[in-house]
Amino acid sequence: MATLTHPTGKIEIAPTVEVRDHDDLARVYTPGVADQVERAAADDSVVPRVTGVGNRIFVVTDGSAILGLGDVGPRAGLPVMEGKSVLFKRLAGIDAWPLPLRSRDIDDLVRTISDVSIGVGAINVEDVAAPRCFELVRRLEEELDVPVFHDDQHGTAIVVLAGLRNALDVVGKDLSEVSVVISGAGAAGSAVARLLLHEGARRIVVCDSEGALHGGRDLDGEKAWLAEHTNRGGLTGDLSDSLQGADVLIGLSAPGIVDEAALRSMNDDPVLFGLANPDPEFDPEVAGGREGAVVATGRSDLPNQINNVLAFPGVVRGMLDAPVRRVDNVVMAAAAHAIASSVETPSREEIVPDVFDDGLVSRVAAAVAGCAHGLSDLTRDRPAPPAR
Amino acid sequence: MATLTHPTGKIEIAPTVEVRDHDDLARVYTPGVADQVERAAADDSVVPRVTGVGNRIFVVTDGSAILGLGDVGPRAGLPVMEGKSVLFKRLAGIDAWPLPLRSRDIDDLVRTISDVSIGVGAINVEDVAAPRCFELVRRLEEELDVPVFHDDQHGTAIVVLAGLRNALDVVGKDLSEVSVVISGAGAAGSAVARLLLHEGARRIVVCDSEGALHGGRDLDGEKAWLAEHTNRGGLTGDLSDSLQGADVLIGLSAPGIVDEAALRSMNDDPVLFGLANPDPEFDPEVAGGREGAVVATGRSDLPNQINNVLAFPGVVRGMLDAPVRRVDNVVMAAAAHAIASSVETPSREEIVPDVFDDGLVSRVAAAVAGCAHGLSDLTRDRPAPPAR
Repeated sequence: MATLTHPTGKIEIAPTVEVRDHDDLARVYTPGVADQVERAAADDSVVPRVTGVGNRIFVVTDGSAILGLGDVGPRAGLPVMEGKSVLFKRLAGIDAWPLPLRSRDIDDLVRTISDVSIGVGAINVEDVAAPRCFELVRRLEEELDVPVFHDDQHGTAIVVLAGLRNALDVVGKDLSEVSVVISGAGAAGSAVARLLLHEGARRIVVCDSEGALHGGRDLDGEKAWLAEHTNRGGLTGDLSDSLQGADVLIGLSAPGIVDEAALRSMNDDPVLFGLANPDPEFDPEVAGGREGAVVATGRSDLPNQINNVLAFPGVVRGMLDAPVRRVDNVVMAAAAHAIASSVETPSREEIVPDVFDDGLVSRVAAAVAGCAHGLSDLTRDRPAPPAR
Repeated sequence: MATLTHPTGKIEIAPTVEVRDHDDLARVYTPGVADQVERAAADDSVVPRVTGVGNRIFVVTDGSAILGLGDVGPRAGLPVMEGKSVLFKRLAGIDAWPLPLRSRDIDDLVRTISDVSIGVGAINVEDVAAPRCFELVRRLEEELDVPVFHDDQHGTAIVVLAGLRNALDVVGKDLSEVSVVISGAGAAGSAVARLLLHEGARRIVVCDSEGALHGGRDLDGEKAWLAEHTNRGGLTGDLSDSLQGADVLIGLSAPGIVDEAALRSMNDDPVLFGLANPDPEFDPEVAGGREGAVVATGRSDLPNQINNVLAFPGVVRGMLDAPVRRVDNVVMAAAAHAIASSVETPSREEIVPDVFDDGLVSRVAAAVAGCAHGLSDLTRDRPAPPAR
């Protein structure tokens, strides 16, 4: 049937059963499936045992924040969603179907996703613009029977925490003591701030394009929450002002917005994460020249690539396997710890494992699944670890 | 990654690209997909060329009429939907994803299906109870940018017309002259009646469980339409009354409701289709004993199995390839003709081709696609063919 297949795109459906003759047909379709249907109708818990529902997810987007390209629309986001689907399958055996949605209204998005969620084991929300994504994920978490993973929040927070743990080990500093500046107050910046707070960081300043978030600014929603729970010193001014004397920069904003002078104004042995795409917030060469610095970017041609691919295959695998009801800070911390500890001896050139590290996905999945089974006592509410 | 795959169910996602190293990763996901996204954002017609959207469909159900089992709910319908997905892929190369929906409200169903339809090339509605399915399909046809195929209406009408054409050839009767009794006024019975009217049948009586539909009964919706456009003789009474002197019985109702006396009361050389599941409306042995009869059922262990699998892979393939905007009577007639003419010399034992007939799907697809390209003049509004 080769002439009938259309190889456009990066994924296809593969039947796991043969249909060669009438016996196959009767078994795969009617009347053979009637028995499974009757058993499932009598007891819904049969459904995951006789169908693939427990291994399926939707990769959902409204197309409002695709990559760094912005609001390109849901159909233009399909190449990204298909790529994500490829990675879910190749790295974690998960069957992920791209689901671009026409709706922009949040009530409609929630209603549609709820309506289709009965056919999958989890929902992966992708590239929905902030601040809409915050309300969307919160409402989905409330209303759905399946867990919700939002890569731009959860995935990024996990990989940043993983990298930061090892980076602080390398420079011999303690998360509860260091001064952290997060550049970017969108989905990623907000989730990172919340997770670092949960993990014991006490000195965090979050900056948006107007500068440091503080109580004196006219803010609402997520940014108001951040202003209230970070920046205890009441710092004002722009990003450069915040960076003076800081130990850690976590850039989740835009390429090239941190200059050499700002980098030089930071504390000794700084940790510099420039995760903007396609280029970091700072010139990586200049940053690397800063004595004692640990530098990480999103780029694959430089050391220390902080990439969400380190997290999402294993995290969602663990969510489906357990199953985990909700991706909370405990789950994220467990995943981050599993990623960080996959690097045997962290160094300036290696604070995160390779994406293709054998066993990484399994370790992350086990850590996440462990949270559902009450095995997360080790990570729950533990203080930030002392410097090694 | 074998330990991470979960082989439950009958389908999985298969990536068509490899992810072995960082180069693959950069090509399949970010930053490699950014170029495709930008091109798609600038021009939506790029989307089907860089993604699999044009070869994808959703198999949608609300679970209200699964097989002959009735309202078992959408999740219990998943084994059927997965089976359908397997057949779409194996027989026609189509990537069909099962989409059970929680909603029952018709507005909600339309909204959800419309919302997700931007990610596929067509919608396959499956096992939605009548009369809701009529309004659902009508509204979807109005509101969606992609075509809608409803197997219980369109698929059944096509295979019945295909079988009937050849059966009438065998007995030497003409569709415009014969007296046709349709047992069943649900999705299938209604669609068959409409298609036969379009094809020139003039003497049709449709019966529901109360007997013949006629103008004197208190009917609404689809049944009122049928009463108005069929049964010109104003026949009253039950199914047995209608069958007296009839040439054709098309059973789309319930097993065993037509007895031997009713069969014997029919005209000489009757055409007897008993398509109820799992057993026909009549005892096939008794029907076969009726001299001159052509007998067909839905059973695979008897000759002349009238099965929707003869139609749906090729029809939807053609819809996607053309693309066809709407499955109207012209499209259905073209598909039926392609199926019927796949039997070189129709006989009492062979009025339809085998499901695995080489080239059947391609021929049906070409006939359907031809309708979109204005090549359907041969089938459009042509009179019923004379007896061969």
